[in-house]
Amino acid sequence: MIVLGAGRVGSAIALDLSGDYDVMAADSSKEALQMLKSKGVKTKPADLSDKKRLRSLVKDFDLVIGAVPGFMGFQTLKTVIESKKNTVDISFFPEDAFLLNKLAQQKHVTAVVDCGVAPGLSNMIAGYHHHRMMAENFECYVGGLPKERKPPFEYKAPFSPIDVIEEYLRPARLVVNDKEVTREALSEIELVEFNPVGKLEAFNTDGLRSLLHTVDIPNMKEKTLRYPGYAEKIKLLRDAGFFSCKPVAVNGIKMKPLDFTTSLLFPQWKLQPGEREFTVMRIIVEGKEDGMRLTYQYDLYDEYDIKTGITSMARTTGYTCTAAARLVIEGGYAQKGISPPEFLGARTECFDWVMKYLKKKGIKINCLRKRK
Amino acid sequence: MIVLGAGRVGSAIALDLSGDYDVMAADSSKEALQMLKSKGVKTKPADLSDKKRLRSLVKDFDLVIGAVPGFMGFQTLKTVIESKKNTVDISFFPEDAFLLNKLAQQKHVTAVVDCGVAPGLSNMIAGYHHHRMMAENFECYVGGLPKERKPPFEYKAPFSPIDVIEEYLRPARLVVNDKEVTREALSEIELVEFNPVGKLEAFNTDGLRSLLHTVDIPNMKEKTLRYPGYAEKIKLLRDAGFFSCKPVAVNGIKMKPLDFTTSLLFPQWKLQPGEREFTVMRIIVEGKEDGMRLTYQYDLYDEYDIKTGITSMARTTGYTCTAAARLVIEGGYAQKGISPPEFLGARTECFDWVMKYLKKKGIKINCLRKRK
Repeated sequence: MIVLGAGRVGSAIALDLSGDYDVMAADSSKEALQMLKSKGVKTKPADLSDKKRLRSLVKDFDLVIGAVPGFMGFQTLKTVIESKKNTVDISFFPEDAFLLNKLAQQKHVTAVVDCGVAPGLSNMIAGYHHHRMMAENFECYVGGLPKERKPPFEYKAPFSPIDVIEEYLRPARLVVNDKEVTREALSEIELVEFNPVGKLEAFNTDGLRSLLHTVDIPNMKEKTLRYPGYAEKIKLLRDAGFFSCKPVAVNGIKMKPLDFTTSLLFPQWKLQPGEREFTVMRIIVEGKEDGMRLTYQYDLYDEYDIKTGITSMARTTGYTCTAAARLVIEGGYAQKGISPPEFLGARTECFDWVMKYLKKKGIKINCLRKRK
Repeated sequence: MIVLGAGRVGSAIALDLSGDYDVMAADSSKEALQMLKSKGVKTKPADLSDKKRLRSLVKDFDLVIGAVPGFMGFQTLKTVIESKKNTVDISFFPEDAFLLNKLAQQKHVTAVVDCGVAPGLSNMIAGYHHHRMMAENFECYVGGLPKERKPPFEYKAPFSPIDVIEEYLRPARLVVNDKEVTREALSEIELVEFNPVGKLEAFNTDGLRSLLHTVDIPNMKEKTLRYPGYAEKIKLLRDAGFFSCKPVAVNGIKMKPLDFTTSLLFPQWKLQPGEREFTVMRIIVEGKEDGMRLTYQYDLYDEYDIKTGITSMARTTGYTCTAAARLVIEGGYAQKGISPPEFLGARTECFDWVMKYLKKKGIKINCLRKRK
């Protein structure tokens, strides 16, 4: 297997798979590869945005894991599919992966995309229950947060902070009574209790992605979790123009507010090496099953791993990905074309395998089944 | 009389005095003088930061009104005093005016400083009661606000916005149990009810100025009024570094956050011509008088004057100043040296004159006397 991208998540993926498979990690940054090298993973410094280089790089592998930054994710995936390589991808790219569906089918490629925690595990859960019940409602609450609450934001970005800000600007698409509607990002703030974290704030973000089109659940929403008070702060910055791309003249220099704001805030939002963080996710699926009205509630909680230094965001994202990667390479999932994770989740044996795998990796997921 | 500075307040002052006196207004901006000229006030374009020019300018006048921007206020006042001219000043300068006390006494000059609404009228009220009772507590709540509450800030700066931001950064000095203490600006937020405005938010700012040294009231505080929620927004900006002067690199360009933030926000905070605003102030003085425990509460409310286009901030600031100016030029107040307004207020006939004058100008001030 080859893992493209050796960031926090890519590294966790390479390390996990290297115990059982012959794994190579590739990244343009030698620094990023250093840690993996020291732990015995084969590494290859390479410019992954170079299509030709990428093609020759993936040639000798049976499976490709895509873990590159979002902005280059789609192009990377396309090249991998063109190279006729099965792939599992967690690059959070803005483009619609289904644009590559025909290509993947023509090339006989299995390409699982968006295969992290959310999107990822959340989609699998949706797919699993959608397949077994008349689902009427799907809710996903998810967030990655630092343990130490440092004012004013009480937030550290567990992944690319520009992708985080993107989520605060893009209108959120949700499904209400069978209709896709949009809500302002950061809207419909509510407080939700989580164990062992306490009260968190949930607000609309555009996180449903493929679920908007692949499942026909009449009510679906995705909300991001932060410590209470956060959304109002970000809304202030947004509404006052701090995230705007319309240049402002500052002492005669034209400057985009977004450029200034990210330069000021990203150092504050940087998760420091060794800094404790956690990932929390709640999925609620409601509907009719075997003549009963049922509610399923999944609660996931995971923490920074002090022993390995792997963040909970890398663990939950990475191990959902490696679970799927193991399935694909072992032939447990072989559907050709683009597969969002709900396609895997719809297959009981695949879903059970992923859930068992995450449990084995120490990720706590509690599932409650309630009659309504 | 000559009025130095023809901004919003200086213009209101010149107009008010020109009804009864021979008044000239001077300003470096011909534009600023245009309105006054059209209303028959004599005007003189002049660079007031030019000491020599200023000296020759004030030579032929009996009284000088200082209404220049804060940063040039102290130097202007000094030149006026050196020119042996009585003066009433509303330039909100950061320096201690008492540094010019000896000079003013030597030159036999009456110099009333900080003679606006707050500082100004608030000091007069403090001085008046301090002189007549064993005052134990003095509180001043004051703010100028737009009538229309436009999110996110619901604020427009009725005077120089950089002076406004200064108030949010400088620690607030107050007096608690006879001791001067400092509190963070924007701290100790409380909601206070005002008629006819409704609930406003009050927070600490550094507004006591001369009162810290001229009266011995054991408890004194000054708080700024805004629409509720404002202080938290400004605190966020402050705590996130948006008002910092420490440069940040933005795409290779070094930029002071304060410079960026003011460039982005000041256009939003600009009071537009004709925009309705109001000024609200509450002064509370408590103590023992004639063997009784008494509380005096003054409530001032004033609005933008649609007929004249003069803002309430210019009215309340300017007419307190013109009341004092009339007193000084008519010999009603002749104390040599620097006089903060509490010195005037301590004289019953001066205080009564100012209060009567403000009433005549249509500024509503309600005074309640309560036995405790």
